[in-house]
Amino acid sequence: MPGNSFGHVFRVTTFGESHGRAVGCVVDGCPAGLRIKKEDIQKELDRRKPGGRLFSPRKEKDEVEILSGIFEEKTLGTPIAMVVYNKDVDSKPYEQIKNLLRPGHADYTYLAKFGVRDWRGGGRSSARETVGRVAAGAIAKKVLSQFGVKVMGYVVEIAGIKANLEGMDAEEIFERAEKSEIRCADYEAEEKMIEKIIEARKEGDSVGGVVEVVIRGLPAGVGEPVFMKLDAYLAYAMMSIPAVKGVEIGAGFRAARMKGSEMNDEMTIDGGRIKFLSNNAGGVLGGISTGEDVVVRLAVKPTPSISKRQRTVNIETFSEDEIVVRGRHDPCIAPRAVPVAEAMAAIATLDLMMMQNLVPRFF
Amino acid sequence: MPGNSFGHVFRVTTFGESHGRAVGCVVDGCPAGLRIKKEDIQKELDRRKPGGRLFSPRKEKDEVEILSGIFEEKTLGTPIAMVVYNKDVDSKPYEQIKNLLRPGHADYTYLAKFGVRDWRGGGRSSARETVGRVAAGAIAKKVLSQFGVKVMGYVVEIAGIKANLEGMDAEEIFERAEKSEIRCADYEAEEKMIEKIIEARKEGDSVGGVVEVVIRGLPAGVGEPVFMKLDAYLAYAMMSIPAVKGVEIGAGFRAARMKGSEMNDEMTIDGGRIKFLSNNAGGVLGGISTGEDVVVRLAVKPTPSISKRQRTVNIETFSEDEIVVRGRHDPCIAPRAVPVAEAMAAIATLDLMMMQNLVPRFF
Amino acid sequence: MPGNSFGHVFRVTTFGESHGRAVGCVVDGCPAGLRIKKEDIQKELDRRKPGGRLFSPRKEKDEVEILSGIFEEKTLGTPIAMVVYNKDVDSKPYEQIKNLLRPGHADYTYLAKFGVRDWRGGGRSSARETVGRVAAGAIAKKVLSQFGVKVMGYVVEIAGIKANLEGMDAEEIFERAEKSEIRCADYEAEEKMIEKIIEARKEGDSVGGVVEVVIRGLPAGVGEPVFMKLDAYLAYAMMSIPAVKGVEIGAGFRAARMKGSEMNDEMTIDGGRIKFLSNNAGGVLGGISTGEDVVVRLAVKPTPSISKRQRTVNIETFSEDEIVVRGRHDPCIAPRAVPVAEAMAAIATLDLMMMQNLVPRFF
Amino acid sequence: MPGNSFGHVFRVTTFGESHGRAVGCVVDGCPAGLRIKKEDIQKELDRRKPGGRLFSPRKEKDEVEILSGIFEEKTLGTPIAMVVYNKDVDSKPYEQIKNLLRPGHADYTYLAKFGVRDWRGGGRSSARETVGRVAAGAIAKKVLSQFGVKVMGYVVEIAGIKANLEGMDAEEIFERAEKSEIRCADYEAEEKMIEKIIEARKEGDSVGGVVEVVIRGLPAGVGEPVFMKLDAYLAYAMMSIPAVKGVEIGAGFRAARMKGSEMNDEMTIDGGRIKFLSNNAGGVLGGISTGEDVVVRLAVKPTPSISKRQRTVNIETFSEDEIVVRGRHDPCIAPRAVPVAEAMAAIATLDLMMMQNLVPRFF
Repeated sequence: MPGNSFGHVFRVTTFGESHGRAVGCVVDGCPAGLRIKKEDIQKELDRRKPGGRLFSPRKEKDEVEILSGIFEEKTLGTPIAMVVYNKDVDSKPYEQIKNLLRPGHADYTYLAKFGVRDWRGGGRSSARETVGRVAAGAIAKKVLSQFGVKVMGYVVEIAGIKANLEGMDAEEIFERAEKSEIRCADYEAEEKMIEKIIEARKEGDSVGGVVEVVIRGLPAGVGEPVFMKLDAYLAYAMMSIPAVKGVEIGAGFRAARMKGSEMNDEMTIDGGRIKFLSNNAGGVLGGISTGEDVVVRLAVKPTPSISKRQRTVNIETFSEDEIVVRGRHDPCIAPRAVPVAEAMAAIATLDLMMMQNLVPRFF
Repeated sequence: MPGNSFGHVFRVTTFGESHGRAVGCVVDGCPAGLRIKKEDIQKELDRRKPGGRLFSPRKEKDEVEILSGIFEEKTLGTPIAMVVYNKDVDSKPYEQIKNLLRPGHADYTYLAKFGVRDWRGGGRSSARETVGRVAAGAIAKKVLSQFGVKVMGYVVEIAGIKANLEGMDAEEIFERAEKSEIRCADYEAEEKMIEKIIEARKEGDSVGGVVEVVIRGLPAGVGEPVFMKLDAYLAYAMMSIPAVKGVEIGAGFRAARMKGSEMNDEMTIDGGRIKFLSNNAGGVLGGISTGEDVVVRLAVKPTPSISKRQRTVNIETFSEDEIVVRGRHDPCIAPRAVPVAEAMAAIATLDLMMMQNLVPRFF
Repeated sequence: MPGNSFGHVFRVTTFGESHGRAVGCVVDGCPAGLRIKKEDIQKELDRRKPGGRLFSPRKEKDEVEILSGIFEEKTLGTPIAMVVYNKDVDSKPYEQIKNLLRPGHADYTYLAKFGVRDWRGGGRSSARETVGRVAAGAIAKKVLSQFGVKVMGYVVEIAGIKANLEGMDAEEIFERAEKSEIRCADYEAEEKMIEKIIEARKEGDSVGGVVEVVIRGLPAGVGEPVFMKLDAYLAYAMMSIPAVKGVEIGAGFRAARMKGSEMNDEMTIDGGRIKFLSNNAGGVLGGISTGEDVVVRLAVKPTPSISKRQRTVNIETFSEDEIVVRGRHDPCIAPRAVPVAEAMAAIATLDLMMMQNLVPRFF
Repeated sequence: MPGNSFGHVFRVTTFGESHGRAVGCVVDGCPAGLRIKKEDIQKELDRRKPGGRLFSPRKEKDEVEILSGIFEEKTLGTPIAMVVYNKDVDSKPYEQIKNLLRPGHADYTYLAKFGVRDWRGGGRSSARETVGRVAAGAIAKKVLSQFGVKVMGYVVEIAGIKANLEGMDAEEIFERAEKSEIRCADYEAEEKMIEKIIEARKEGDSVGGVVEVVIRGLPAGVGEPVFMKLDAYLAYAMMSIPAVKGVEIGAGFRAARMKGSEMNDEMTIDGGRIKFLSNNAGGVLGGISTGEDVVVRLAVKPTPSISKRQRTVNIETFSEDEIVVRGRHDPCIAPRAVPVAEAMAAIATLDLMMMQNLVPRFF
């Protein structure tokens, strides 16, 4: 059974290999009559794009071409196919190591599963696949914006340096983060994080980080218990992002150390509406949204492509060997994971909203 | 769109409310010809059952009745419907608070979503729903056992007390944990944990914990990238369990603080097979199993039902109010979450194995 | 991958073998707050029930027990599990022929697929499985009735005798048919049909027929092109009913012999609304409802259980053999297929309506 | 919920509007390691292509571009995205009638469903959408051929003229049909059919027909009762093809007029295997393949685009009006429906085979 689609009502299918002809996606189920321009999608792709002094130097304009589903800048309700042709493909560094399994990568597991493997740039397991997610997420965000739902992501930790975001509201955090080279709203912490990133790169090494995503404006009542719960669905979406090793909702792992009386969010009435006095739940109770901010955090592992010498196996000779991974890599992937995490959060949330009739079939 | 099914090939649908007529499940897609006895299922239900000095005093024998799909102790390949009738139902304590939204519970969100609500014992949002998961999980485990795959869960932390499991293998941990009242293999830590639980109960409060599940014997190559990855699917399954607020794979959130050179698991050849020299990946790379132990951890929040006074809202009068939750509750749910976590891990893993033809259609 | 569920948003899973403990279904996705009584379901089961001089003498009261999902005669939005225990089970006639493959039955194919087989009364392949469909269909009908959608089925042909229904409206046909022993609104034709049925039974043989279902009141715009079209979905639903060998929409096979100028339904404006001047399309264009009556016809083959001697294979001795099928069978199954066809039409239609937000998530 | 995907394990998603940028598909779930060339796909597209004296003069080379999923002429097990850019687009004739609802077309229903509509060439409801189906079907056929399964389609009736195919085997019929301009193996009937087609075109009218598809080599045991039966799934697949109004399996509607003793296919042993003495079942019993030829017939309605004057509605003025449909149309679509029907039969059959482990995950 294939795993390249996400979503049941707003369904996204991504395709493409890193050094193949193109990457892209098909979005099926987008409501008709939505006004959307190519720039709405391009803008999000630009946020994900490689480049800059801290990231991969692969030069991709990542220009999206819309093949279907949009007519006169309005969605038709039919599948929206979007393609980004791969331009700056350099498969040479991969040719030299094509028989060496890169530690921390999916080389071995893809081989075990599929028998064959596109060794060029990681093929399908490359983070380049996320281009399709971000393009689809741009559409999901556009739909969500019609209902006042906003998805905001940012970095909260890199290489063990935590951003101090106390007292800042999510919108402020998001805006400040967007101005940061590494999407960190605490500019003091940012400086230290960048140092750590540069240091890691110098050593031919890499560092990890933690990303937080806030979904604001989601009405109470969204989620499909008992399995397709909002938090479960978000965990599914987030953990599917390359390099993510952990997902938390609200207090997350901290909740395991709290007492019920600390953890429970008390309720009151405010302005004629039920309001929670705290948000340890992270906006989800019983798998259904409470109307508060939905807060998700994801652990991003350090980029596995490092130029330090590592022990591995040569699959041609089937013997022990060593590898030094060259190529154009990010010493820390967490900042570029932000738009991807937002995209997945947007897709998952919209999908659940559409499941329960909160979105009209056309605008 | 309904959310009461999990799995695509081995598909489990649970049904039932806490104080309704029955809880149960339908398992569709189980291979035919599997030898299974009622006891195989009962045994797992017994592991989940309430009772004992540290847990809810609700007296349920939780005896399973098999309605279909099994003939002469062999599966037919047709849906297996299993029912556990609710016997020890006492809805009185709930009647008194039926208009008060219990903090930390799904009362408000169910109301927001469904407009109506079975207030008796939490209705569908009760952890009693997991009876169906455990019954289905028993079948999944039985199928997995045919392929040497074993799923083992245990408690690694309660109320901030961490079990020291260093040097113990998962099988040993599991066996020791099964002998523990709270499923903790470190008997020194166990004692402290129990103290904390008893203390919390005395205070009318509750505590949380962390559960770990190990899936052993899974061959390399299982998982469906790019969305239905093994880790993503497990995260989905685990986060759908009541009270779970976080999920980690392998190094998990620790990975965010590691360097690539520390995190990457190097490879070698051992006994003619590729072998990893460490398992920070937790048995998953690129969303596909590596052949090493799959290691998942979940954060279980403290039981929200506490008898401490809490602020809340009365939905009849639509005014601020206070609540004291009585009834028969577990001061710490983590130990009873273990068989549920195992069940979900077994179901998710088997489902992915079946997706890729690793299980014959009949035995 | 299992095939015992139908529907994506209103999802029905049936379970049970003919001579097993019980048959039944789980309905997931029913909107909350729907008023429904046990009698609403029982009434439909009674329409399907065996009995009478022309049908199987198996004595089943087919009393439904609701296990979950309904509280105080209102749906909760949670899964509705319904069970009918098998009471009048007589497996003896089957024991004698358990090694003989019954021609026209699924004995051989079930064995080829599953390796094992419940030989008692056809096991899962028995038409008794449709009990679950009808119970689920009763709920679907109840939901549809909230929107003025009515599903009406009747017999239009048996043993080559065609009912003359010209000039009668579907509602009239339906009402007259409900008063007929074999659900035929043309009482002259009915007489001849009954003769043919009795004659066939005397000969130890059986006859087939054609059933028509009309879905009235469905608004224009329902259907999900390009695959999950209304007509395709109905064809899927109808062909899944035991003994059905053909499905037509509107003019059906007659359309193949018509000219475009005859087949096309012209349009006009009537009472401020677009109206079709004919309905050869059978209420579906491009896979989407037109607002006219949806008209579906299904060919029901003669009951395969006949007491005439037939050539077959003995699977124990793996040799050629002969069989005479005894037991309690219907010499013509078409009339009893009517409530099943209605149920499937109701489920499929409601599912599509719910897919496109035409049904609120709660009442 | 979107309807542009077909298949659960071998899943095809088509996209594209008739006069948009491109049409195409994504095939997810194709086993890895399958040798496939662009020509394998192009060949099938060429069979579907417009052109010739009897069909639409739209000049499309329909050249396929493979964007992903194939590397060094082998499938990777990742999604295969295929695109055919629309070249010979002439939207002018449509501009003139863009406010007139074409009878027999989906203009009105698309508008009712989506609120907007791409009026150019029928947009998404155009038969041009089937390009994606045929491209995907080419891959399905290639996989099926590895297992000796062959899908063969041909015309059996046009404008009431029936082909006499008695005594011919399906392979012979298919080969002869492939040499016929209208895919009819009975060359005498062919002549009369062509006359009828030319006559209809002269009158500005159109005619319908019946197509038969035979699936040969399918082993016994394929199908997923009780809903996703082989015949139900084929009916679903076939009825989703534009212009199809009826589907039959085996004896089909004729079965309704047969006695059980005529309809039942007796069994014997032949060459150590169970063999049926007739095939009225059309290769399916209880929704599962018998090992005999699977025989499906579909009724294709006359092309709705005719240049005869028809009554309709102008949606701009919302008044009664008349329409004469010009453009480049096929006076009979049945022959061009053949490769589409084969494609859908291949996709549905392969999907079911893959559901039950009859296809390895890689070659």
